[in-house]
Amino acid sequence: MRFLCLLALWVMGAAGPALAQDTAQQTDVAQPAGTQPVATAASPDGKLALAITINGEGRVGYAVSREGKPVIGESHLGFLFSDSRQMLRGMELQSAAKSSKDESWQQPWGEWRTVRDNHNELVTTFQERDKLRRTMRVRFRLFDNAVAFRYEVPQQPNLARANIVEELTQFRVVEPGDAWWAPALESNREEYLYNHTPIDGIALAQTPLTMRTRSGLHLSIHEAALLDYSGMNVARVHEGLLEAALTPSSSGPKVVRDTPFETPWRVILIAPDAPALYHANTVFLNLNEPNKLGDVSWVKPRKYVGIWWGMHLDTQTWNSGPKHGATTAYAKRMIDFAARHGFSGLLVEGWNKGWDGDWFATGDDFSFTEAYPDFDIAEVSRYGRRKGVRLIGHHETAANIVNYERQLEPGLDLYRRLGVDTIKTGYVSDAGGVQALDPNGRRVFEWHEGQVMSRHHLKVVEEAAERRIAINPHEPIKDTGLRRTYPNWVSREGQRGMEYNAWGEPKNPPHYDTELVFTRMLSGPMDFTPGILSLTGRGNTPIPSTLARQLAYYVTIYSPIQMAADLPENYEANPGPFQFIKDVAVDWDDTRMLAGSVGDYAVVARKERGRPTWFLGAITDEEARTMTLPLSFLERGRRYRAEIYRDGDDADFRTNPRSIVIERRVVRSTDSMPVRLAAGGGLAVRFVPLGR
Amino acid sequence: MRFLCLLALWVMGAAGPALAQDTAQQTDVAQPAGTQPVATAASPDGKLALAITINGEGRVGYAVSREGKPVIGESHLGFLFSDSRQMLRGMELQSAAKSSKDESWQQPWGEWRTVRDNHNELVTTFQERDKLRRTMRVRFRLFDNAVAFRYEVPQQPNLARANIVEELTQFRVVEPGDAWWAPALESNREEYLYNHTPIDGIALAQTPLTMRTRSGLHLSIHEAALLDYSGMNVARVHEGLLEAALTPSSSGPKVVRDTPFETPWRVILIAPDAPALYHANTVFLNLNEPNKLGDVSWVKPRKYVGIWWGMHLDTQTWNSGPKHGATTAYAKRMIDFAARHGFSGLLVEGWNKGWDGDWFATGDDFSFTEAYPDFDIAEVSRYGRRKGVRLIGHHETAANIVNYERQLEPGLDLYRRLGVDTIKTGYVSDAGGVQALDPNGRRVFEWHEGQVMSRHHLKVVEEAAERRIAINPHEPIKDTGLRRTYPNWVSREGQRGMEYNAWGEPKNPPHYDTELVFTRMLSGPMDFTPGILSLTGRGNTPIPSTLARQLAYYVTIYSPIQMAADLPENYEANPGPFQFIKDVAVDWDDTRMLAGSVGDYAVVARKERGRPTWFLGAITDEEARTMTLPLSFLERGRRYRAEIYRDGDDADFRTNPRSIVIERRVVRSTDSMPVRLAAGGGLAVRFVPLGR
Repeated sequence: MRFLCLLALWVMGAAGPALAQDTAQQTDVAQPAGTQPVATAASPDGKLALAITINGEGRVGYAVSREGKPVIGESHLGFLFSDSRQMLRGMELQSAAKSSKDESWQQPWGEWRTVRDNHNELVTTFQERDKLRRTMRVRFRLFDNAVAFRYEVPQQPNLARANIVEELTQFRVVEPGDAWWAPALESNREEYLYNHTPIDGIALAQTPLTMRTRSGLHLSIHEAALLDYSGMNVARVHEGLLEAALTPSSSGPKVVRDTPFETPWRVILIAPDAPALYHANTVFLNLNEPNKLGDVSWVKPRKYVGIWWGMHLDTQTWNSGPKHGATTAYAKRMIDFAARHGFSGLLVEGWNKGWDGDWFATGDDFSFTEAYPDFDIAEVSRYGRRKGVRLIGHHETAANIVNYERQLEPGLDLYRRLGVDTIKTGYVSDAGGVQALDPNGRRVFEWHEGQVMSRHHLKVVEEAAERRIAINPHEPIKDTGLRRTYPNWVSREGQRGMEYNAWGEPKNPPHYDTELVFTRMLSGPMDFTPGILSLTGRGNTPIPSTLARQLAYYVTIYSPIQMAADLPENYEANPGPFQFIKDVAVDWDDTRMLAGSVGDYAVVARKERGRPTWFLGAITDEEARTMTLPLSFLERGRRYRAEIYRDGDDADFRTNPRSIVIERRVVRSTDSMPVRLAAGGGLAVRFVPLGR
Repeated sequence: MRFLCLLALWVMGAAGPALAQDTAQQTDVAQPAGTQPVATAASPDGKLALAITINGEGRVGYAVSREGKPVIGESHLGFLFSDSRQMLRGMELQSAAKSSKDESWQQPWGEWRTVRDNHNELVTTFQERDKLRRTMRVRFRLFDNAVAFRYEVPQQPNLARANIVEELTQFRVVEPGDAWWAPALESNREEYLYNHTPIDGIALAQTPLTMRTRSGLHLSIHEAALLDYSGMNVARVHEGLLEAALTPSSSGPKVVRDTPFETPWRVILIAPDAPALYHANTVFLNLNEPNKLGDVSWVKPRKYVGIWWGMHLDTQTWNSGPKHGATTAYAKRMIDFAARHGFSGLLVEGWNKGWDGDWFATGDDFSFTEAYPDFDIAEVSRYGRRKGVRLIGHHETAANIVNYERQLEPGLDLYRRLGVDTIKTGYVSDAGGVQALDPNGRRVFEWHEGQVMSRHHLKVVEEAAERRIAINPHEPIKDTGLRRTYPNWVSREGQRGMEYNAWGEPKNPPHYDTELVFTRMLSGPMDFTPGILSLTGRGNTPIPSTLARQLAYYVTIYSPIQMAADLPENYEANPGPFQFIKDVAVDWDDTRMLAGSVGDYAVVARKERGRPTWFLGAITDEEARTMTLPLSFLERGRRYRAEIYRDGDDADFRTNPRSIVIERRVVRSTDSMPVRLAAGGGLAVRFVPLGR
């Protein structure tokens, strides 16, 4: 899939004063007086500069500046082991090698058809001067909008196995500013409202951790290619000093790896504004290996409906009984509804045995092969196939991977036989963690983003790929761009979705959505399950959203599989707005964040994959906003029918959420569109080409 | 040793609405709307009120108010286990029992001869409503100036062994304010400058963690009776919400205990001002078990000199060679000096084999029984005994407890044979942790304050007690009042001592000392090693202190064993100030913090144990201060000769640190003393009774 590849490589000689002097001339980076860089590198456009330092104690550091202004101050690197002295001090540079790359590649599905990977690379090798003389490489990559690095630990006699207690990776943010972050390692899941605090108000944060410095620079710390390793959280240690805090393990070291191994990439997106930060997110894909699965035409972006929202409303149940949602009859009615409106998938939750006991607590009783007697899965599949509606499979594990892995292959086999090509998995835990087996076969609790789970999720994705099935995990491990390598890892949840608007206390406030776009959504697709046109949750409680906003989510919150999550009767009662959900695309050639501000608003335009149609989505926080939007993203000279779903002039998510205006206008790329977003509101537009 | 004991105990019947209603009338505490207290209690003076709650999820909480104003908002309790579901939600109150106690007891040595333990107790028992039906007790004690509680986990079939991943103990500080805290779990030691930040600027803090709220209330979070458990650090999780963060272990769970067991006490000191906060520190002693050692008259408070400062100045070495400090000849000269000036102890570091290799890295080579050939330990001991000067033993382990425990008994036996009654141990680590053995006998690294070290330190103290030897650990586990139970645990370090003024970058700034008094010093004695009258460190670099301040430390920073840390020649060159160091007592009948402000200044008066002499010490930060001090602590009607060592009028730690005035005046308790502390200065006074 690579069709352009430029590669330049030169290896610099032995490091030392000569090298230091040589390379120090290239850049001007911030660092403590007295520490001279031993190697430097710059981004392709020359704006970002990286300096590698070794201080008086022999600690390896890096620093980053942008256009000559310090962004990341000298930040140290190293490891703490449980059975060997720390690898931290007494290091010297052995070699530094530079290369660069400018390559474009294609996504089988995604926000952009073509992704450009343009970076300069600096590979530094360090060795301990004395004692154990262990060695590690640090591979840095500088993009125009990001700095990334990973540790690569070679095989070596004094480090045959790394029992990593902590990865001592620092991020010293030079400027003060704002931060948006979700707390990490709290009650063992990821779904929280964001904290918006000063950077020095960060406690222990999940990534992506997004910051805006006083000078307006936008940063986000995250990781790429989280494989056989523990997920990285970020803790604030001192003023401006953040440090990696790996997700713990039940068994002592947070990560156990035999050498050679490499860590995930530690990534700092660096962008001048919020839209540019969003566009920088291709870096996570670029840092992953290319598609390993070959032909993935069987991974189908699609919209789907589900037997799902009723359970969150408590009008149906997952478990058996009089309110059981997953019945043959109801599923057929849902298939009829889906087929009538052009949805090609039906998610059925609560179809399988195991929901009747205390499943939330143990998950031991779940069967992944046996349906409830009132759900004839073969018949429902057959019925659906005839109508062009596939079942979306469902594997709720209650975070019990012992039970799940035991049944994984037969469970996948069943779905394959039934023609299911997408499975939503789930790892909701009430027990305080993921139930797994330790090396001695004892039941232990693990964290959702620990090394055990990085292995588990990959195992599920690989087993599913063998059966041409895509995976969409809820309460997942975070997204780190692995969809590039495994394109059947089609979406995931990993933050508060729409179900919190059914029963959450509190529900998702409007500013949550506009924070989500610039935090969680930097990492990859999210199965947000939007489109609740009733605007009501459990017990008819109001959802903090206007009607137009429910439509806007389909463009602002990217996922190649998008749910129309509401009940059929609510769609049928709202045919006007529902039309947008039926029309909106899910796979794209191009994506442009046209305007946005973290936590305030976001305006996104996307061009449908393989078609000239554009879509636009905009959401705001609790504040109403007006703006004038140039339509210059449209093809020049072409006329479009703009099908506009906008907040009524009197709309307000608190007082008048259902006020919507649906109107059509003819526009061209030279036009501007006046936009008015109500408080808690949104805007959704389809631009249908009409000819020249 | 108890000579007063009042005990009232009544057990309340089965809990439930009746109990809740009954006890809710007693107090008025802050809590979220809708959560009614299921039990309450108050401090003996009625000012502090405690409410126990169970919320809708069945989570146990507690809240504390003072004089009707919320101090600690509803804060939850529980455990996360590695092999069993969390014990957190679905709890119900089974019983609540109240009692009260007013007892006074005597310290064999200490800041106060008599300590009063006056508290009300509430013992609550909770059980899970369903699932595993596990049970836990939480025992609360309310003092007039503190709230303390501990978990007590009974033996039970569904919790035979607790593999504790985290203790989910929260401290929700209602008011914003200032915090003084040293970072925890950083590079695996405790010696750091304090951070002074907003409470919401706390990251991960060691305890004691001291706070001053906006309304002026002084709080400090710490623990008591840290036995066979992991030390508690405190992490900020959200605005105002702090949570326990136990020190990790190399082996997965942070704590492993068979039931029944009890946790250390979690303590919140609550005082109206800084002096009252300091006086509240007897709570830590009161929460420990009484003396287990019987007659401890062999534990001797004393002042000592040492072969020590020269090594920090780099004019002598620990290791053998031409600069070796611990030679027979030099030790004898030091004994002569000690005897001449009335010091009864001589610390000799670097006396034993093992300092020549890379000891800092491994500690494997240390012998605890073999002296270097140029140090005749028997001869030196004999020489000292004849002159009334005992050796202070030294066991530097380099944080290698494998090597140390292997030699512990012979090492202690040797010192016992030589008449040594106090040993300074050391756990300085360059390797990234404490080297220990895991249950499979493999070498692992542990944290200084983990469960393994809580066991190790106790083992050393107990083995030493059998030989009538007192222990003074450096780079220790934190002090949690265990000196009450083991009075031979005579002092410890556990924060930056004077050696940082020899080579620290930076050195200890003056405000560090005034922070120390209200943080680390709340927990117990510290071997601070003061008295550097040269006021210079390595390479003649200046120490940030005036001359009078070096004397003031002996009163402001409590330790029953105090070092005169400077070189003999520096004392002989400064006979005036030296006189105070010779005169000052080390054991006390009474202690009064007369005035103080966290990080700003501290004025302490102490009455010598068994004698009518008083001493006064005062230190300030970088700011000069004047005040008028009423001498009302002196015995009424008695005349005293005040021997005053004060900063000269032109003294300043930066420009004129050596300016000192030594003067005598006759004073009475009705007098006031004008005090002027120079910037970075201090004041030391001895009040010698003269008769009526």
